[in-house]
Amino acid sequence: MTTTVAQQPTAVSLDEWSCPLPLRDYPTIVMGHGGGGQLSAELVTHLFRPAFAPGDTSALTDSTVLTLPGSRIAYTTDTFVVQPLEFPGGTIGSLAVHGTVNDLAMSGARPLVLTVGFVIEEGMPMAQLARIVHDMARAAREAGVRIVCGDTKVVERGHGDGVYINTSGIGVLDDDVHIGPDRATVGDVVLVSGSIGDHGMAIMSQREGLEFETTIVSDSAALHTLVHALRAAVPDVHVLRDPTRGGVATSLNEIAADANVGIMLEERALPIRPAVRAACEVLGLDPLFVANEGKLLAIVPADAANTALSALRAHALGVDAAIIGEVVADHPGMLVARTGLGARRVITTPIGEQLPRIC
Amino acid sequence: MTTTVAQQPTAVSLDEWSCPLPLRDYPTIVMGHGGGGQLSAELVTHLFRPAFAPGDTSALTDSTVLTLPGSRIAYTTDTFVVQPLEFPGGTIGSLAVHGTVNDLAMSGARPLVLTVGFVIEEGMPMAQLARIVHDMARAAREAGVRIVCGDTKVVERGHGDGVYINTSGIGVLDDDVHIGPDRATVGDVVLVSGSIGDHGMAIMSQREGLEFETTIVSDSAALHTLVHALRAAVPDVHVLRDPTRGGVATSLNEIAADANVGIMLEERALPIRPAVRAACEVLGLDPLFVANEGKLLAIVPADAANTALSALRAHALGVDAAIIGEVVADHPGMLVARTGLGARRVITTPIGEQLPRIC
Repeated sequence: MTTTVAQQPTAVSLDEWSCPLPLRDYPTIVMGHGGGGQLSAELVTHLFRPAFAPGDTSALTDSTVLTLPGSRIAYTTDTFVVQPLEFPGGTIGSLAVHGTVNDLAMSGARPLVLTVGFVIEEGMPMAQLARIVHDMARAAREAGVRIVCGDTKVVERGHGDGVYINTSGIGVLDDDVHIGPDRATVGDVVLVSGSIGDHGMAIMSQREGLEFETTIVSDSAALHTLVHALRAAVPDVHVLRDPTRGGVATSLNEIAADANVGIMLEERALPIRPAVRAACEVLGLDPLFVANEGKLLAIVPADAANTALSALRAHALGVDAAIIGEVVADHPGMLVARTGLGARRVITTPIGEQLPRIC
Repeated sequence: MTTTVAQQPTAVSLDEWSCPLPLRDYPTIVMGHGGGGQLSAELVTHLFRPAFAPGDTSALTDSTVLTLPGSRIAYTTDTFVVQPLEFPGGTIGSLAVHGTVNDLAMSGARPLVLTVGFVIEEGMPMAQLARIVHDMARAAREAGVRIVCGDTKVVERGHGDGVYINTSGIGVLDDDVHIGPDRATVGDVVLVSGSIGDHGMAIMSQREGLEFETTIVSDSAALHTLVHALRAAVPDVHVLRDPTRGGVATSLNEIAADANVGIMLEERALPIRPAVRAACEVLGLDPLFVANEGKLLAIVPADAANTALSALRAHALGVDAAIIGEVVADHPGMLVARTGLGARRVITTPIGEQLPRIC
């Protein structure tokens, strides 16, 4: 049954979903599911454990004990509040896996284990929660990471929005890996692993009810195997960053500031899907500021740029990779773009919120 | 300035709080604080980093790289949605530190690092957020753990409740530590480290506006040094559990089920403060089901019981420790209490929610 749900995450109604009776009795989440009593235990026993750790019947404890294959680790956390909860290309569940896996991968770490914390709003349909949980489990399975512990809280109607999901994650790093924004060096080349703006515009198009000839699909994906392929070809990758909230512009501005270098971007080189470009025009948004959830920025030494580009393009998640700019000595701390017409414009980080609750 | 806020967490208004101008311009949280742009960066630069990592000016990255003093770890997560956000004895901030530190300590681990994830409701007063963040930083400092990375999301008014806080944590364990519910063995003795029900009744009394001669203060505290003292005296501690949501009754029921043993509780032996007992009577609650946030249950071999009791009582957080029961062969999987009158009653886990949003 579990497998059926996981394979067809958007096609399962509560009737079709053959869950044990204790959960079936409650078609929606009630406050008691967060009370730590029998209802909480049933949610864990009949939904979370079968999805995240099928076959595991060991005792539940306050924390999970595990032995890592190394003591140098990357450690991160992210909370997801995206609306809608389900969108073309994913759900808040798969996004919560990909987001944290990618944060670990950007350090050059091999992601291993995740924790999950749910804040569920009273009244959330149980069937929708089940779809999201199984999509989360599928994403973790596909990324090769284990969800090793979790926590559930329930808040009253009007104090949540379906479900908020926090994930934290641990990955292990080899001793010789040193990737960081401060390593961006004048002369380095900037690459992006594919088209930009897909995630943000998939969410916004659905939220605004926009229809285009092609449905815009989120790029949400786990990037650690792409990083592995890149580092196998170019061991001395200087900087990696996944341009999520705030988009490519915000990430490159942060790197420019941290390394005290300038970054010059070639706007014409940016891969942008026609539907994303069209949606951005309709909504008055600059794709440079739109969130991505399955793309990375890589900064590498100039003599490794073509090798890096080939390595990215040889991977299924990097076929549209492009060289999009370079690290320069001019305008330290600033991101400048050469426009299609050859002019230059300074690209600053936005003050606040272009796209609320995009992840 | 930071220090002043931390020392007097409940006495600081926004006017007194000398924060840099970018934050002062916003007396409340706005959606842009979660947008990943300049406002987000200002919140990190002027509030979170000075509180959690004073003096650290290194570049911010997607994940934190650190080297652990060992590869056998305990790993856990917990989300906190308590209302009110500030209560006698703590805030949601200190509770979020203590809760996760204690989950690690119950494995016998030495807690080392935490992550923090905030979900903040638009309109939350900046001064209140600052008090909570500084109380959180104080709790972490006092517990000797570092908050190494964080994430902030902002949701619209009516989709949150001030702030929800997730923490995850990592602790390291020696190879010879094996503490777990399945180790409860017939003949073992059950101890509690002090008075029960203090946290839950502190929250409920404030929520219900109850006034007693003595204010009930939450017992929220980090228990890892108490565990250390106990294990130094009794290396072979079988089970540790902090009885939070669902209280002592739920924790002992879970242990009885996991180990397939019976547990017999002496009700008269349970330490309960008079004000807590009175508040429970007013609200019709059983203190056995009320949450604790600074108490532990320990199950040890019978011949170590008095040594364990002395070790707990010698520690500031265990002065009211008591032997409260034993592990028995009768009624496996069940918790039974001998009442003050000598009768026996079965104590089951509650179905749902006795005290919503207690942690």
